[in-house]
Amino acid sequence: MAHIGIGLLGCGTVGTGVVRLLQQNKQKHENFTGRPLRVEKILVSNMDKERAEIIDRTILTTDPDEVLKNPDIDIVVEVMGGTGLAKEYVLRALNEKKNIVTANKDLMAMAGEELFSSAAKNDVDLMFEASVAGGIPIISPLKNALASNKINKVMGIINGTTNFILTKMYKDGSDFSEVLALAQEKGYAETDPTADIEGLDAARKIAILASIAFNTRVTLDDVYVEGITKISSRDIEYAKELNCTIKLVGLAQETNGQVEARVHPVLLPLYHPLAKVDDVYNAVYVEGDAVGDVMFQGLGAGEMPTASAVVGDILQVGKNIVKNVSPRDNCSCYQKKEIIGIEDTFDKYFIRMTVADRPGVLAQIAGLFGDNDVSIDSVIQKKYCEGKADLVLITEKVQDRNLKKAIEQIKGLEPVYALENLIRVEKES
Amino acid sequence: MAHIGIGLLGCGTVGTGVVRLLQQNKQKHENFTGRPLRVEKILVSNMDKERAEIIDRTILTTDPDEVLKNPDIDIVVEVMGGTGLAKEYVLRALNEKKNIVTANKDLMAMAGEELFSSAAKNDVDLMFEASVAGGIPIISPLKNALASNKINKVMGIINGTTNFILTKMYKDGSDFSEVLALAQEKGYAETDPTADIEGLDAARKIAILASIAFNTRVTLDDVYVEGITKISSRDIEYAKELNCTIKLVGLAQETNGQVEARVHPVLLPLYHPLAKVDDVYNAVYVEGDAVGDVMFQGLGAGEMPTASAVVGDILQVGKNIVKNVSPRDNCSCYQKKEIIGIEDTFDKYFIRMTVADRPGVLAQIAGLFGDNDVSIDSVIQKKYCEGKADLVLITEKVQDRNLKKAIEQIKGLEPVYALENLIRVEKES
Repeated sequence: MAHIGIGLLGCGTVGTGVVRLLQQNKQKHENFTGRPLRVEKILVSNMDKERAEIIDRTILTTDPDEVLKNPDIDIVVEVMGGTGLAKEYVLRALNEKKNIVTANKDLMAMAGEELFSSAAKNDVDLMFEASVAGGIPIISPLKNALASNKINKVMGIINGTTNFILTKMYKDGSDFSEVLALAQEKGYAETDPTADIEGLDAARKIAILASIAFNTRVTLDDVYVEGITKISSRDIEYAKELNCTIKLVGLAQETNGQVEARVHPVLLPLYHPLAKVDDVYNAVYVEGDAVGDVMFQGLGAGEMPTASAVVGDILQVGKNIVKNVSPRDNCSCYQKKEIIGIEDTFDKYFIRMTVADRPGVLAQIAGLFGDNDVSIDSVIQKKYCEGKADLVLITEKVQDRNLKKAIEQIKGLEPVYALENLIRVEKES
Repeated sequence: MAHIGIGLLGCGTVGTGVVRLLQQNKQKHENFTGRPLRVEKILVSNMDKERAEIIDRTILTTDPDEVLKNPDIDIVVEVMGGTGLAKEYVLRALNEKKNIVTANKDLMAMAGEELFSSAAKNDVDLMFEASVAGGIPIISPLKNALASNKINKVMGIINGTTNFILTKMYKDGSDFSEVLALAQEKGYAETDPTADIEGLDAARKIAILASIAFNTRVTLDDVYVEGITKISSRDIEYAKELNCTIKLVGLAQETNGQVEARVHPVLLPLYHPLAKVDDVYNAVYVEGDAVGDVMFQGLGAGEMPTASAVVGDILQVGKNIVKNVSPRDNCSCYQKKEIIGIEDTFDKYFIRMTVADRPGVLAQIAGLFGDNDVSIDSVIQKKYCEGKADLVLITEKVQDRNLKKAIEQIKGLEPVYALENLIRVEKES
């Protein structure tokens, strides 16, 4: 019986998981596609490296052509990561009319357009469910089941490391640096945690989600990014007082045909569905004009959750091949919408400063906000230590540009000792 | 340009929503399928009834053949409900080689096998995303994206009415009958609320989900059903004391190749993702061998959420037609697994009784549990009024059959005044 041939580029954690899962549920997969699936070749950089027992060493190769030009291979699965060789190989595979399944968010967020145009030219499928939120089915529902809707907003907790850190800070009142060290110890954060804690990992994922949700290309460069390194236990204390938690979110929305995409911490009211997503869990919240709000939650990383999404894609492509309909999904970015910069966005803000503890200070600050069209919703003022007070202001929804102007002026005031933090607040949905 | 022709059977709330959504996002839908979609005919029972303005009265008909035999119609959308005429029409439409989209859980839970076999024979698609959990994409992810997994368990809050009632009881401490009246007043519960509060609506949905998850046919008759009418504010008080909430769930799981499906209230620990799903929200929690646990949450009913799912299905079928691949999805029940009855299932139980407040009673009761292989995990005993005590026992995981035997014997004990309630407890996941 004819089979569906699979070639892997890479055999690290995810690659090993893919091989494991293909073996584990072999019969179910064959029932799904109608043909057995077989891993023909695996490209590795080191033939001698120790590997899990399930890896058949006789199909390892260091020659990319044994995958890319292999006539027995129908689907090339890119799980090597990075944007250099990975991009080169994927483009070569596409030109060889291979269907592609990739877990590579960096590649999709950077080169999605180029890859999709090559896939279309070569009449093959390009699938990337695993590139966002690990095993959670989100790209496929957004592309297909929810295609009936005009999507207004996508907001997600799409980085497990930062969610672990913020959850721990919230629950234990501990400081960022302590919790980061613990996350590194537990293997939730890498030795160089920059991509996670500075929000760059989440930025790639929200670029991908925004492109699908709004049918227009959004790349990493279009995403405004702020990480969580400035969040202090004091911010979290005040968030609690306001019945909020603090989460790092990727957020994309369309307003009057204009699209914005950003990653930053937000104060989320505790009743918001995302506020309850803790530890290393990921979740993506979607607002559509018909469906209302839906949320998809699960594990956003790890060998088997990620393999679940990769193999899920392999199965779809496999069925497309058997039904002779590949490619079924084309690039959905058929529009060109304006992407607005952060200065043009509107938000509520939480602003925490240390000010002189004496009469008239609040009036002075409030005056400058008013001069810049920034309305204040509420204020908490507390004595901090002798002569100093904590001043926390929550604004109405104001334009980023105006807020920044006001903040610049306020920073210059004599009784303002420090502008401690500025965090966006997610308004009631 | 050729279009995709749609015929509606029924024009109630959901039918009207479907027409509305097809108009609202017309261009997006055309971009998705590659061809414009057009509603050709709508079967109604009353031509003179007042209808929303968006309904074009010139395409209404009372003659089913104008839909079923209409050569301009590619997709028949069944939104009339019921299992009599609806089934007859759907079968006739299938025999006319029409693709079917239905929102009808009763029909799918009762006649899924017959409909699917006719769809296969006639080479057309049969889609039913809207039949479970309204707008939440759950059937398609379970069938496709998660097909890489062996699914172990599906558990869902899949009835909004009962979730509204239990949430209100939990938050306000009110009694079932008061809250039911409120739900009826708000339009969340029907004048005859039986199907909701007795769990029958949820039973149909879990039969559908179980069939997909385990690739074996599960019908309504296979589902054990208990409703929420016996849940009292006192049960909820004790649930709180145990850091739990009470939810009505549909639950299906496979253990050693045997499948069980049931609907009943459970005590859910507050940290469980489903415990946080409140009011009229629905959510489905899925455990797979690779993905771990994922959850899908959103609005389970209503005109536009349901239309979102129906039109989502129309779009998939439309794309299949354009790509000439209809049917893409076949029936996924290709196995025949044993379905076990409730007496063979294992669970933890919460048992609340009113007993005589004197020494030795607990020992007597515990003895009978022990005689029947029912181990006790924990006990709460509280004076209730003069001479009477509340006795709450939490068992270990025990077989239903053994528990029932023990309970029968305990009921006969002189100091046991009343066996107030027996509720399953969802163990830690």
